[in-house]
Amino acid sequence: MSTTGKMVATALCGTEMKMLKDKNLQHQHYPIIMGHEGAGIVESVGEGVSTVKAGDKVIALFLPQCGECTSCLNSADNFCIKLKQAETHLMSDGTSRFTCKGKPVYHFGNTSTFSEYTVMDEISVAKIDAAAPLEKVFLVSCGFSTGYGGAINTAKVTPGSTCAVFGLGGVGLSVIMGCKAAGATRIIAVDINKDKFEKAKEVGATECINPQDYEKPIQEVLFDLTGDGVDFSFEVIGNPETVAAALASCRESHGVCVIIGLIIGVQLNISGHLFFSGRSLKGSVYGGWKGRDGASKLVSDYMAKKINLDALITHSLNLDKINEAVELMKTGKCVRCVLLL
Amino acid sequence: MSTTGKMVATALCGTEMKMLKDKNLQHQHYPIIMGHEGAGIVESVGEGVSTVKAGDKVIALFLPQCGECTSCLNSADNFCIKLKQAETHLMSDGTSRFTCKGKPVYHFGNTSTFSEYTVMDEISVAKIDAAAPLEKVFLVSCGFSTGYGGAINTAKVTPGSTCAVFGLGGVGLSVIMGCKAAGATRIIAVDINKDKFEKAKEVGATECINPQDYEKPIQEVLFDLTGDGVDFSFEVIGNPETVAAALASCRESHGVCVIIGLIIGVQLNISGHLFFSGRSLKGSVYGGWKGRDGASKLVSDYMAKKINLDALITHSLNLDKINEAVELMKTGKCVRCVLLL
Repeated sequence: MSTTGKMVATALCGTEMKMLKDKNLQHQHYPIIMGHEGAGIVESVGEGVSTVKAGDKVIALFLPQCGECTSCLNSADNFCIKLKQAETHLMSDGTSRFTCKGKPVYHFGNTSTFSEYTVMDEISVAKIDAAAPLEKVFLVSCGFSTGYGGAINTAKVTPGSTCAVFGLGGVGLSVIMGCKAAGATRIIAVDINKDKFEKAKEVGATECINPQDYEKPIQEVLFDLTGDGVDFSFEVIGNPETVAAALASCRESHGVCVIIGLIIGVQLNISGHLFFSGRSLKGSVYGGWKGRDGASKLVSDYMAKKINLDALITHSLNLDKINEAVELMKTGKCVRCVLLL
Repeated sequence: MSTTGKMVATALCGTEMKMLKDKNLQHQHYPIIMGHEGAGIVESVGEGVSTVKAGDKVIALFLPQCGECTSCLNSADNFCIKLKQAETHLMSDGTSRFTCKGKPVYHFGNTSTFSEYTVMDEISVAKIDAAAPLEKVFLVSCGFSTGYGGAINTAKVTPGSTCAVFGLGGVGLSVIMGCKAAGATRIIAVDINKDKFEKAKEVGATECINPQDYEKPIQEVLFDLTGDGVDFSFEVIGNPETVAAALASCRESHGVCVIIGLIIGVQLNISGHLFFSGRSLKGSVYGGWKGRDGASKLVSDYMAKKINLDALITHSLNLDKINEAVELMKTGKCVRCVLLL
C-alpha cells in the first residue's frame, strides 16, 4: 500500500530546526532522511493503492489518516494512531525503502521529504487539486495547517476576542492568520526577535511585543495591556517556561492556552493555582485537521483564495543548498525557504 | 452592604479536611472562624442591601457574584474577581465582624460558616426557595455544585461517553452524578479506599477500581479497561501526581481532564508528551456556576427533584461535635456530616 513520489517542494519546519539543536529530540536511528513538509507528484503506486495514481499531485503527511482507527472514525478526533508508525522510522510493513551504499537508511515522520524521491504509505499522502502550485501548497503539509488550525479548530477562537501568540516562526504566523480569520479583534504577537514583527503585522498582528523590553514577566505585561488577560494564547515555541507564561497570560475564568510548539521530551512545571479559576491548557497536532481530509481542503481553500500561503514563503533555494536554508531560518527575516528539486 | 445570617446547617468540606493536614494551605491569619459550606436565615441586613431581607433563606457562597466585574458580565465566566477578597480574611470594607475576648477574629472563604451567626457581603449570599430544607440544600454551597457542575459545565460530558472520577468524597460523588445526568454510559470510580465504592455505585458509577489492586500505573489500567482511554477524567483529590495520571488516562486525541481538587500551593509536573496528541487539562471553580445564580437554580432543581442531595448526607451532628465529624470524614463511610445549629 505504498506510494513512490517525486518530491517537488519541501522546507525546513521548526521541528527540523529544533532537532538540530535539541538532544531530547535526536534519535538513535541513523542514517536517516529528514524532512516532513513537502509536496510532490506520484511516480508509481504499489499493490492495493486505490486513492492516488501516477501523476497525481499530493501533499506528504506526517499525520496519516488510516480511516479505520477509533480516532479516524470519530469526528472530534484527528490523531490517527498510525502516526506512531513514525517512531519506528520504517514503513508500515517494517521495511526501509532507502539505501545508501547498500546499507539501509531510516525514514522520518512517515515522509522523508529531503529526497528527490520518497516512498510513503498510502495513508500518508493526500491527493490535491491538479492545478495547485506545489511550491506554494507544500505549506499545508505541516506549518500552515498546524498554526491556522490550532486557532480555528483547537482553540476555537471567537469573534471579538483577544489573542496572544508566543513565537513568530512560520507556524506562529499561521496562528495569527487563523486568529484573524476567526474574527479576533486584538492579536498580540510576542517574540524576542523584533525582526519578525513586520511580517507578523503583515499577516494580522495588531501589536507586537518583545519580552526583553520589559522588566516584568511577560504575563504581567499582557495583563497590563489587556486588563484581564487574553482570551486565547498560543505557545508556538515548544519551551516549557513559555507554556507556563502563555497559560498565565490568559483570562482567569475562561482563558484557553493552546500548546502548538513541539514539547515532546520535556516536562511542564506549572503552578496548580493557574488552573484554579478555570483556565484550560490544550494540546494540538496538525491543527486539529484530519490528515488527508484537511490537506485536500486547505489546498482547495488556497486555490479559492480563502487562505494566504504566499506571505509565508520568503526564500527559495535548491535542495542541495539546504545548509544555507538552515542559516536563513535562524534569522528573523526568513519564514519559510522553499527547497526545490 | 453586609448581611448577618443565623447559620442553620454547615459541614466540613474537603478543603477544611485538607487544611487540617496541609501546611501549604494554612494561613497566617489566626484566630479564624472556618467553614464555607452552609445555609442559613438572614437575621438582619446592613445599609444598601436590596436583594435579601431578614427572614430569607440563603446559601453562603465562597464564590461571590458581584454582577459588575468583567467575569460576572461575561456569560462564559464565573470567577468573580471579588473571590480574591477571601485572601484578606476580612469583609470587603476591610473589617472583621468577629471578636473573641475583645480581639479580632478573621473570616474564612467570605463565609465563616462554623458559627451560630456570621456576617457576609451581600454578593456572597444567594436567596433561595423559602420552602427549601436548609439541612439538605446547604450542599449546593460548595460540594455538590462543584462536582456536578464540573461534569456538566466545565467538562461538558457528552451522551454515551466514558468517564473516570479520581477521588470519591462528596465532591467526587457529585461529579459521578453530573456524568450520569449528562448521559455518560460508563463511569469508572477510582479510589484507594474501597469503603467508598458502595456509595459510588449508588449514585451512578458503573464500576469501581482501587489503584492499589494493580501493579501497573492506574492510567494503564484504564487504557486496558477502555481500549483508548476515557473521554473525560476528573481529579477530585488535589494531588499533583493524580492530576498527571488522570490526564494520561484520557483519550489521546480529544480527552479532557478536569481538575476539581484544590491544587492551590502545589506545582504540577506533567510530561509535555501528554498534550502532543490533543488532550486538554481544564480548571474549574464552583463547577462553572456563577455564585448566586447557580446556587438559587440548584436549590430549585432540588425542590423539583431534578437532583439528589440526600444521598450525600450520611451523618448528622450538632456543631459542637465538629471534632467527631473530622474523624468521621476520615473514614470511607461518611460523605457529608451535616452540622446543625
